[in-house]
Amino acid sequence: MVVAVDAMGGDNAPVVEVEAAVAAARRWGIAVLLVGDSARIESELKKHQIADLPIAVRHASEVVGMHDSASDAVRKKKDSSIRVAFNLVKTGEAQAVVSAGNSGATMAAGMFVLGRIKGIDRPAIATIMPNRKDNTLVLDVGGNVDCKPQHLAQFALMGEVYARHVLGKAAPRVGLLSNGEEECKGNDLTRSTHCLLKGNRSGYVGYVEGRDVFNGSVDVVVCDGFVGNVVLKLSEGLADAIGSMLKQEISTRFFAKLGYLLARPAFQAFKKKVDYAEYGGAPLLGIQGTGVICHGGSNVKALQNAIFQAQESVAKAINEALVAQLSKSLFDEKSLTAMLERQEEVSDVAVGVAGL
Amino acid sequence: MVVAVDAMGGDNAPVVEVEAAVAAARRWGIAVLLVGDSARIESELKKHQIADLPIAVRHASEVVGMHDSASDAVRKKKDSSIRVAFNLVKTGEAQAVVSAGNSGATMAAGMFVLGRIKGIDRPAIATIMPNRKDNTLVLDVGGNVDCKPQHLAQFALMGEVYARHVLGKAAPRVGLLSNGEEECKGNDLTRSTHCLLKGNRSGYVGYVEGRDVFNGSVDVVVCDGFVGNVVLKLSEGLADAIGSMLKQEISTRFFAKLGYLLARPAFQAFKKKVDYAEYGGAPLLGIQGTGVICHGGSNVKALQNAIFQAQESVAKAINEALVAQLSKSLFDEKSLTAMLERQEEVSDVAVGVAGL
Repeated sequence: MVVAVDAMGGDNAPVVEVEAAVAAARRWGIAVLLVGDSARIESELKKHQIADLPIAVRHASEVVGMHDSASDAVRKKKDSSIRVAFNLVKTGEAQAVVSAGNSGATMAAGMFVLGRIKGIDRPAIATIMPNRKDNTLVLDVGGNVDCKPQHLAQFALMGEVYARHVLGKAAPRVGLLSNGEEECKGNDLTRSTHCLLKGNRSGYVGYVEGRDVFNGSVDVVVCDGFVGNVVLKLSEGLADAIGSMLKQEISTRFFAKLGYLLARPAFQAFKKKVDYAEYGGAPLLGIQGTGVICHGGSNVKALQNAIFQAQESVAKAINEALVAQLSKSLFDEKSLTAMLERQEEVSDVAVGVAGL
Repeated sequence: MVVAVDAMGGDNAPVVEVEAAVAAARRWGIAVLLVGDSARIESELKKHQIADLPIAVRHASEVVGMHDSASDAVRKKKDSSIRVAFNLVKTGEAQAVVSAGNSGATMAAGMFVLGRIKGIDRPAIATIMPNRKDNTLVLDVGGNVDCKPQHLAQFALMGEVYARHVLGKAAPRVGLLSNGEEECKGNDLTRSTHCLLKGNRSGYVGYVEGRDVFNGSVDVVVCDGFVGNVVLKLSEGLADAIGSMLKQEISTRFFAKLGYLLARPAFQAFKKKVDYAEYGGAPLLGIQGTGVICHGGSNVKALQNAIFQAQESVAKAINEALVAQLSKSLFDEKSLTAMLERQEEVSDVAVGVAGL
């Protein structure tokens, strides 16, 4: 089991990547292949004691920057660290990829090099958000901004399998993000998706609202990548704003400052519970292989946990579980049409009965 | 100047509505017409000293419930408190409506009874959210779940006028909510809307992200009603979750509890700053009249502030300003097409120049 780490991805690459690889190898014995500018990586590695650790380096001459387009990563920079990392999975030299680089490019490279799982039209990026009880998986938070109903239905299926196999939830509850819980709510996209999922997917509980992301009422929240991105950045922004506004109020009051010092362990425990670094990264679901995407500004702890998470996903055979699940229920164009027709027939029968 | 208050709307109607009307009449001298079941309203009024206050009652025999559909409010319950309240504005007996009832029904009744402002295809519900500096107006958070580019452009225009005339911002900055700041981001809807707004609307600053709702970088955030509803409920849910998770950590630690007691004034000052009740309600924009929509669970303070806000909107002639602004820039189907064509011509010229 080898994890290929894109050593050139993050804002502080390759410093943070190298340190995280060393930590993961030492703590969990995970074999890591660091991919990127070998001179720079080797020079970083010299700062650590790695004689007995399963760490190796693979050279890649190019880097996909944060402002490169996803398609450039695939078409132009063929020797980029992220492309080479996925190639290692293709050739069997590695089993998973971790990157803190351009997430669109990582998704595109993964899809291009490894291909999609049969039955999945669009891979999705899922993110694990803390809630009152444990955590909620939200997908897609990636680049799928204009989705069709079958895409969202596929996200629902992938989210359920991931929550069950990797997050260890016995019977994950899956909700479709909407503007209200009643069936009459939603937009064109969610209404058609609801018809597809209703009575068809185990775990599907119907529409959920924004507040359900944090109250623990569901384990998986499904939305398109546009809405998912708003959810992600709004949450980060609000948490930051609350923190800074509270700090401001405390800093102008002597007794409040004293009180804050006394209460600090509670604040720290809370911070640890909601620290994104504890969760590692965002799984890239739907490609024929394992990928974990980290925030560009990830610290060592986050990347280290992402390497562990990548190993876990492989060990828990998430892709095999997805393939098995997909063989049972395909959400493609054809079954969508069939299901929507069936839906209409049921409505017609209902109208008929009501009219007796 | 008379404000018609739907006395049957909120979860605790008419108790809270009557108390808020009495408070607003006493504090600001605002004349209030309480609309609804006159027996119940009169019986509530008896609990207060109102001899010298400008408060009157208008009977309405029906109530639109939270589970009634918006169209039912218009087609079926013709003597509902919300319909009668808007009728009072139509006949000139009142100048504004405040309701804590079914928001979809309030919007529908307002649109049906008073009609839309010329140039506005869809009225919008705007909500005022606290940010690090002052506040951000977000619209639409109402029922416009499937929008066209011209609808979002109209929301942008209405938001700018409201922020300038009612919120007192000299030159409001208007952002379009997207999944990234770069022009290449967004979905089909936001990309077309961006073309419409770019270089055309004073105050338009381009795409903004979820975090910009709270950091004070813009004054107005424009989105469709589906996304706006997610923004609203996610924010409420996250703030609640943070509060309850912090409380939990504090409650298990003796010194932290003591510290919290010392820091309480800071927490209370923060709470007051972000308390929705301080902001009153959400203005209903785009109808030929003034409406303020409150949360169903609104307390007396929120409703009282909403009555004040309704009076302010009329006094500051927000609708007249909207009409004046709309006469300058119409975002209808025809101008949309023309603008998109112009956009393509510019691109063609750019391509031509680049190819020299």
